[in-house]
Amino acid sequence: MIEEEILKIIKPTEEDKKGIEKVLEIIRERLNKLDFEVEGSFRKGTWLRQDTDIDVFVFYPKDVGKEYLERNALNDIINRIKDLDYTLAYAEHPYVIVNINNVEVDIVPALRVESGDKAITAVDRTPFHTKYVTSHLDERGKDEVRLLKRFMKGIGVYGAELKVQGFSGYATELLIIYYGNFRKVLEEASKWKHPIKIELTKPMKIFSEPLIIPDPVDPKRNVTAAVSLKNIATFSIAAKYYLKNPSIEFFFPSKKVEEKVKGDVLILRLNLDEKSSEDIVWGQIKRSVNKIERALKQYGFRVIDVQAWGDTNNITIAVQLESKNIGQYYLNIGPQYYSETIEDFIQKNDNIWVGEDGRLYSIKERKEYDAETIAKKNIVLKVKYNIESYWLQNKEDQQIMKFLRKTPTWLK
Amino acid sequence: MIEEEILKIIKPTEEDKKGIEKVLEIIRERLNKLDFEVEGSFRKGTWLRQDTDIDVFVFYPKDVGKEYLERNALNDIINRIKDLDYTLAYAEHPYVIVNINNVEVDIVPALRVESGDKAITAVDRTPFHTKYVTSHLDERGKDEVRLLKRFMKGIGVYGAELKVQGFSGYATELLIIYYGNFRKVLEEASKWKHPIKIELTKPMKIFSEPLIIPDPVDPKRNVTAAVSLKNIATFSIAAKYYLKNPSIEFFFPSKKVEEKVKGDVLILRLNLDEKSSEDIVWGQIKRSVNKIERALKQYGFRVIDVQAWGDTNNITIAVQLESKNIGQYYLNIGPQYYSETIEDFIQKNDNIWVGEDGRLYSIKERKEYDAETIAKKNIVLKVKYNIESYWLQNKEDQQIMKFLRKTPTWLK
Repeated sequence: MIEEEILKIIKPTEEDKKGIEKVLEIIRERLNKLDFEVEGSFRKGTWLRQDTDIDVFVFYPKDVGKEYLERNALNDIINRIKDLDYTLAYAEHPYVIVNINNVEVDIVPALRVESGDKAITAVDRTPFHTKYVTSHLDERGKDEVRLLKRFMKGIGVYGAELKVQGFSGYATELLIIYYGNFRKVLEEASKWKHPIKIELTKPMKIFSEPLIIPDPVDPKRNVTAAVSLKNIATFSIAAKYYLKNPSIEFFFPSKKVEEKVKGDVLILRLNLDEKSSEDIVWGQIKRSVNKIERALKQYGFRVIDVQAWGDTNNITIAVQLESKNIGQYYLNIGPQYYSETIEDFIQKNDNIWVGEDGRLYSIKERKEYDAETIAKKNIVLKVKYNIESYWLQNKEDQQIMKFLRKTPTWLK
Repeated sequence: MIEEEILKIIKPTEEDKKGIEKVLEIIRERLNKLDFEVEGSFRKGTWLRQDTDIDVFVFYPKDVGKEYLERNALNDIINRIKDLDYTLAYAEHPYVIVNINNVEVDIVPALRVESGDKAITAVDRTPFHTKYVTSHLDERGKDEVRLLKRFMKGIGVYGAELKVQGFSGYATELLIIYYGNFRKVLEEASKWKHPIKIELTKPMKIFSEPLIIPDPVDPKRNVTAAVSLKNIATFSIAAKYYLKNPSIEFFFPSKKVEEKVKGDVLILRLNLDEKSSEDIVWGQIKRSVNKIERALKQYGFRVIDVQAWGDTNNITIAVQLESKNIGQYYLNIGPQYYSETIEDFIQKNDNIWVGEDGRLYSIKERKEYDAETIAKKNIVLKVKYNIESYWLQNKEDQQIMKFLRKTPTWLK
């Protein structure tokens, strides 16, 4: 069976586990006497082979407050590991990333609270998630989570970060806990129609998102609040197609070559000067993509698709139009001949005529009809960046070919 | 006052009248012993100087029937004038056009009926129109009709023929009879909003046209049934503007030069082999213009304007588009991810993706994206014709400049 084959690839071996334990030993020594715990998928046993970072949380009494976490706690942690290869990262709060033997360890300061619903910062809930998942998943359940994670990675809907707007690891674990196994999750997902409610616990709030999984440790929070409708739809369709025709393609999609450039494709290559947090950059990139699409449509372009890809420094935005030549002038529809506004219309317009329907019409000049200018104007990045833009002539790199092809390889 | 100035130009002199009487004398001799009458604007005294043809009707007892008119009657008439310069013409029935000293005389066979509402062919009503008008218009009234006719000619809404779809001479006469004078007609027309009802007599039918003038001699007929909404609207706007600022421009518009070609303008020059009746050719041209516009829009073009001009043999159709480059491909909007039709959509489409709204999208190739081909395909002429087509580069002849300018010279 295909899923067993996949598990052979993605399930960590005892050796993998030992390698990570070795790394953790180093961290444990450094955090000696602090109130720390390993969290995340490694702790929960739902991690994928060669595809994990380790989360170590350091807890402080909840009375110390946020500022203490961000300064004193962080400084203390840095002092303990500063001889190692580390970087500072920022989510809601700053945390430390240590790289040991190519294993990434995130050391996250958090507040110790009594229960999930008492969380002060977003990370304070994490130990309760860990407890909930470990107490509800057996060994087989953990493998089912692994299959679901790999499936979601394969079809591109895994990852809570803004860049993806997909499913978090915790969400996949809750789906397996609720439905029992990987296949059952797919069977249900293939029948989804939003709003979708998956209630391991009664919600303590009315949620408006398309997919609603109230957090069992904090029911006034929707675990999947940030999952986009696009990702929900993609997952539902992929589930339906996988069940009809299971294939490794869903877990590990192949790369296909697309030869044809259809329509006019504008490529914007952005190079960001500063290093910013991924969620901040991608929040701005997503907003730029939306603004570009809206502006182009407003100016009269027929937009096929606008997508962005890249990392935190090098980002490509691709804009695909039916045609970049919409013309300098457009038909302006005026009032009926009997309207009081006709004199105003006649005064303000040129090239005016009466149509067969009794309306006045005129020809107007577009304020802007160069798609490249419009696209560039609507990039809203708050950091400095260089931009290179050009109209695509031929297929270029793999990402552009993927953009041109569009159809996921698992679909067709 | 401007109208008196105009009358000096358009009102025939005694000499003009004598010239026409001379021509009529020749015709009268030829039609000796037939039951004939002079009809039309010359008879009614509402004709314009150097701008009239003379209508002579030859009546036959109503029992002879239509076929007799078209054969025996016509042959008899032809035999009497065949040494003159004549041509055969076709409206609802054939009639004879004789040219004498550059004056055109139409000799029309008709049936003698008891009253207008007993008309068997369209022309049988004419003597009753003549009687109605002559008995309701005094000398000043006739001049008011002349002003209205010239005004309507100037703004392009005069002429009952299909090519114009404007006001007939009879309609202008009824408007003056109803409203009293030229100025009063304009004052009322400037306030028109369709449906407009002008009832010299109670209608004997429910009419659906925008302008309704029941025929006083046959109230089940709408005199202005064929006047297009475009012409009604144009007349109403011109009336409003003339009253605010009277000018000779309305009666005799000047020619203005338009320098700019805005958008992409396709010129189709049609040359018709056979000589057909104007109404038949222009019925087909009007239908072609509509079909071209509809087809182009359906194929995705943004049409600014499509117009036709010319005579019965040489016709120009001009097609103005915002852009002729709409691209070979278009965005195809598919079903929501939960729809039962998604499998069908996926099977039939290429370049498929899931949008942010949960819908499937695809890229489709247009069946046709060459505007020239589409325009040519949608010409529906039943006679043979040659066609030359090209994209306009510069302003060319006066008609094309008028098409490009659009704004009537009397408007702005």
